[in-house]
Amino acid sequence: MVVVMAAEAGEADVQAVVERVESAGAEAFVSRGVNRTIVGLVGDVERLGTLNLRGMRGVADVVRISVPYKLVSRENHPDRSVVRVGGVPIGPGTMTLIAGPCAVETPEQTLQAAQMAQAAGATLLRGGAFKPRTSPYAFQGLGEKGLRILAEVRAETGMPIVTEVVDAHDVELVSSYADMLQVGTRNMQNFALLQAVGGAGRPVMLKRGFNATIEEWLMAAEYIAQRGNLDIVLCERGIRTFETATRNTLDISAVPVAQRLSHLPVIIDPSHSGGRRELVLPLTRAAIAVGADGVIIDVHPHPEEALCDGPQALVNGDLRELAKTVRDLPPLVGRTLTTV
Amino acid sequence: MVVVMAAEAGEADVQAVVERVESAGAEAFVSRGVNRTIVGLVGDVERLGTLNLRGMRGVADVVRISVPYKLVSRENHPDRSVVRVGGVPIGPGTMTLIAGPCAVETPEQTLQAAQMAQAAGATLLRGGAFKPRTSPYAFQGLGEKGLRILAEVRAETGMPIVTEVVDAHDVELVSSYADMLQVGTRNMQNFALLQAVGGAGRPVMLKRGFNATIEEWLMAAEYIAQRGNLDIVLCERGIRTFETATRNTLDISAVPVAQRLSHLPVIIDPSHSGGRRELVLPLTRAAIAVGADGVIIDVHPHPEEALCDGPQALVNGDLRELAKTVRDLPPLVGRTLTTV
Amino acid sequence: MVVVMAAEAGEADVQAVVERVESAGAEAFVSRGVNRTIVGLVGDVERLGTLNLRGMRGVADVVRISVPYKLVSRENHPDRSVVRVGGVPIGPGTMTLIAGPCAVETPEQTLQAAQMAQAAGATLLRGGAFKPRTSPYAFQGLGEKGLRILAEVRAETGMPIVTEVVDAHDVELVSSYADMLQVGTRNMQNFALLQAVGGAGRPVMLKRGFNATIEEWLMAAEYIAQRGNLDIVLCERGIRTFETATRNTLDISAVPVAQRLSHLPVIIDPSHSGGRRELVLPLTRAAIAVGADGVIIDVHPHPEEALCDGPQALVNGDLRELAKTVRDLPPLVGRTLTTV
Amino acid sequence: MVVVMAAEAGEADVQAVVERVESAGAEAFVSRGVNRTIVGLVGDVERLGTLNLRGMRGVADVVRISVPYKLVSRENHPDRSVVRVGGVPIGPGTMTLIAGPCAVETPEQTLQAAQMAQAAGATLLRGGAFKPRTSPYAFQGLGEKGLRILAEVRAETGMPIVTEVVDAHDVELVSSYADMLQVGTRNMQNFALLQAVGGAGRPVMLKRGFNATIEEWLMAAEYIAQRGNLDIVLCERGIRTFETATRNTLDISAVPVAQRLSHLPVIIDPSHSGGRRELVLPLTRAAIAVGADGVIIDVHPHPEEALCDGPQALVNGDLRELAKTVRDLPPLVGRTLTTV
Repeated sequence: MVVVMAAEAGEADVQAVVERVESAGAEAFVSRGVNRTIVGLVGDVERLGTLNLRGMRGVADVVRISVPYKLVSRENHPDRSVVRVGGVPIGPGTMTLIAGPCAVETPEQTLQAAQMAQAAGATLLRGGAFKPRTSPYAFQGLGEKGLRILAEVRAETGMPIVTEVVDAHDVELVSSYADMLQVGTRNMQNFALLQAVGGAGRPVMLKRGFNATIEEWLMAAEYIAQRGNLDIVLCERGIRTFETATRNTLDISAVPVAQRLSHLPVIIDPSHSGGRRELVLPLTRAAIAVGADGVIIDVHPHPEEALCDGPQALVNGDLRELAKTVRDLPPLVGRTLTTV
Repeated sequence: MVVVMAAEAGEADVQAVVERVESAGAEAFVSRGVNRTIVGLVGDVERLGTLNLRGMRGVADVVRISVPYKLVSRENHPDRSVVRVGGVPIGPGTMTLIAGPCAVETPEQTLQAAQMAQAAGATLLRGGAFKPRTSPYAFQGLGEKGLRILAEVRAETGMPIVTEVVDAHDVELVSSYADMLQVGTRNMQNFALLQAVGGAGRPVMLKRGFNATIEEWLMAAEYIAQRGNLDIVLCERGIRTFETATRNTLDISAVPVAQRLSHLPVIIDPSHSGGRRELVLPLTRAAIAVGADGVIIDVHPHPEEALCDGPQALVNGDLRELAKTVRDLPPLVGRTLTTV
Repeated sequence: MVVVMAAEAGEADVQAVVERVESAGAEAFVSRGVNRTIVGLVGDVERLGTLNLRGMRGVADVVRISVPYKLVSRENHPDRSVVRVGGVPIGPGTMTLIAGPCAVETPEQTLQAAQMAQAAGATLLRGGAFKPRTSPYAFQGLGEKGLRILAEVRAETGMPIVTEVVDAHDVELVSSYADMLQVGTRNMQNFALLQAVGGAGRPVMLKRGFNATIEEWLMAAEYIAQRGNLDIVLCERGIRTFETATRNTLDISAVPVAQRLSHLPVIIDPSHSGGRRELVLPLTRAAIAVGADGVIIDVHPHPEEALCDGPQALVNGDLRELAKTVRDLPPLVGRTLTTV
Repeated sequence: MVVVMAAEAGEADVQAVVERVESAGAEAFVSRGVNRTIVGLVGDVERLGTLNLRGMRGVADVVRISVPYKLVSRENHPDRSVVRVGGVPIGPGTMTLIAGPCAVETPEQTLQAAQMAQAAGATLLRGGAFKPRTSPYAFQGLGEKGLRILAEVRAETGMPIVTEVVDAHDVELVSSYADMLQVGTRNMQNFALLQAVGGAGRPVMLKRGFNATIEEWLMAAEYIAQRGNLDIVLCERGIRTFETATRNTLDISAVPVAQRLSHLPVIIDPSHSGGRRELVLPLTRAAIAVGADGVIIDVHPHPEEALCDGPQALVNGDLRELAKTVRDLPPLVGRTLTTV
């Protein structure tokens, strides 16, 4: 950390900073410039963070140098990780397709969507039984009934299940059905939920908050990792910006940036970021080309009747094109489509 | 609602829309323009919302006209509401000062902060026992021990307590101590928590998500109201923008806008939006002048030792100025400082 | 356009709207809902736009339905356009690589950068002689001397030149050297400049303002087109968001969105959006995969000595990888690299 | 400045940085931490800025410590400045009301608006003759004819004139009529224009770019100041955020922040930020309370017929309330309304 003293700070102010730092067992190096003095700190960052240096007289700013997450950081773990979900790998060298309906509605709709997904090359089935909805008047999901449908479709198709959990106290229930727990964008800073999934013994897909910086996303992953669970897959799904032509703005650069900062796999959700069907294929191609470890896509046998996010679900014609894309594009970036 | 047809939509596409709308028991009015056809819908918006019109062939856009919240809307409730917290009113005609420490640390610190707050004109005591923190390595609050300290300080000072709850399953515990439950900015779309506080029988302070539109904020309030609790106070605390000179950007316009859309009281948190002590007084003055129903402010007897957000806590000198501000400014906008 | 009446609007208010619309020679269709009345307007949008309907009593909102640009819109021009720059095409079917130094510094540096670019597959040379810089203390470019260097390098390499113009009154000078005029992100709404380049008889590359919506970008293109110049290439180069890990956030979705709304070619600048060398290749791959008609990239023979944006310039090792990418990836999305 | 070395940087990388810094005549202080080495630099920041340290091997980041503007900075000019416009002061101790029509349309409309403004307490007249419009199809202003109308109204009312200039080459013409030149939000980084108004010998009102950080705003002011003109008034007018309930989000905190960083006066435009008439008075009160040195407000005798921004213009009834506000509120924050 570096403490930047204000232009008007006196020698006594600088000394006070040095003394507080040293009394905490750390070292302080003072550099006196023409207009400013800066103090470089060497020691335990967590400890230094509690010293409240920013509140001291004469301090203009405190700049953190090292990253505030450890377990998920790539600094001490240079090899990128592979996370396995019911035997299906997500990580370097492969490109994993996860697909399925936004919401589980009926056994038939879920099975059809799964078969469509599988035909396109998907090896993991997504589907929501608990849906976080902005409006209290919108469809909230089937709950445990939906989980049972997912389990039946898994038995039928052999596809492991990825499904969302929205309340810390449902984690045990959802874990008893799911192969992978999804934490949604609105819950990325629901710390009680993060801690609960950290203790659940299941891989976790952590969607980036649409409002969250990449650093906050990695800190949210750190919450999960701290409970002993390092099987975390990061999922970029668009951020909120001033642009209204798309539902959110897909931050495609987040993939290489997060892969450089963290050893965890990073995938992209092209369906929710764009919010429109005609954007899904172009964004899927961009996701694979930029180096994502996977993509997660909404499919629905009858999107015009979907209870949730119908306008962005792929339909049959699109799926042939999707199948071609996930087969042909990964080899150009040194990957192969994950198969079972 | 209005359905905007694409330029290339044919007559059959328009008819399909009309038929789906009419089959749902609603009416459709077709207006044919030179380049476009639009279809105006009259009927139950919730029902129309489930028809997935946006996914139909030839539909370019669906524009919602009426607001998606009802219970908190001012349309059917033109008089602005007063919410009472342990007898202290928040609403039109008054300006209520809520103050206290960001986090409860010790009985002494909390009592001193409460007395400082009271001397400045505060009638409600804020203080966090459960703290949602971005980093898993930061101080997370004292939990129930903190709640007991707050109750003791209430007994000593007579000030009702406002405190945060971060997990749906703590609502009962926190409600057994608190006079008002606070839902924090990172939990504004934690729907499980919103529903739990809706059933708790305590007034709720709902902080705006730093990423949330005013409409989403009111929809979150609707979640609480739906459980039968209309004692909700909205609290603007800054939104995330590209500007980094302040922690967040205080959206001062949100006060008149939300007061016009909803009958609920709206207050401002000048401490967390700016994140710097020297901004608290100017922003408090702006908050009162713009017509806020109250302000909520961090105070700490020794901010340089605070475990949470020390740099923004007001200290003794500032408090004399605050006392003057909250006494002299409200009358100029037709309000008086709330007293007990 | 659709006029949404306020809930409290009376019949007289509705009539006043209808009369003003009809007096302007347009038609008004009234739809009366349970809570709201809406009025659909059919007629000349520009004319309707001047009626100030939003300011009338009882009007809650005015929603525009058709797009506010015409000449660049794809509605009346369904085929996507090809823009030729000194004989080099930019448009559907091809993928054009534009590369060169951010700023022209010396004849040697410019020639070397051009040869590096050409070896990687570039057919157009970029290079700035007039540089808009945020700080008045930063290098502002060589001016006409830089243009002469560019012309010499064109003579030597055969590559047509793309270069920026920052002042309406330099357009004639710059046009006398350049094959394509670039309007930079900070000038996207410099309307005097847009009109000047519209009359210059040279193709124009219009960078998206880092603060501009896609609609505003197309309106800026409309300013140029209105002066009779339809040889416009749109260039996405990142928008400003809350994320600070990258210089700007590349809005990759803007490519398919703008290509659907407008017939103009759309290219991507992966160098300026990310602002870091290690992001350039992944973002270039994403750009090609998403369907961009071209990419524009910074190269510099000695980036550590560059006077402008050195940290993002590609160096020799990267260029071999770039050459491979621009050769192998376009065929997978139905394009071929433009050659001369 | 501080150079942060990457975790993997070697001793040779650190030495290379030190040598480059010292060869530029500056000093480098190396602090070796457990994970990182940082190098503190002391010397001429402009010179250091050209060394491209960020591009060197092993460098993770370069953090600037001192501010990049000098002439407008408060560091070397602790007293806040007063700018006089035709004898009317804007600065500490006073609160100056500037008002008038958004666009000059006719002599009658302009005179009536000026008289309304004057009756409300305004001492400066605003009015646009050159209008920068997002759409090429919108009213672009009367040009020099508008300037002549403003001059006539100044002769009639005695109010000095503030008017916008949009092209560097109109500066001389506009200066021959205007008492103060306005640079609009879309031109805040039109550097050619900034330099031209810097040399015009007239006070300048510099609107903040709706996309600009406070630092960039002050750098734009530095461009003007560099040409010898320090009579600059900064005007906050709202920034672009994700919130769509208001046209822009008024960044009220920008006033105390900019006043602390710069000695220049800072005013607020409540009309353009909110974009709605009912927000103008609340935001004006907030502006005065937060400590703005002035406010600039749209008034129009017949807003429903205005050719520009009619929906936000104040009308007669509002103006009585405005007159009361600008008279009664400033004394509470230690100011008095500027009179002539």
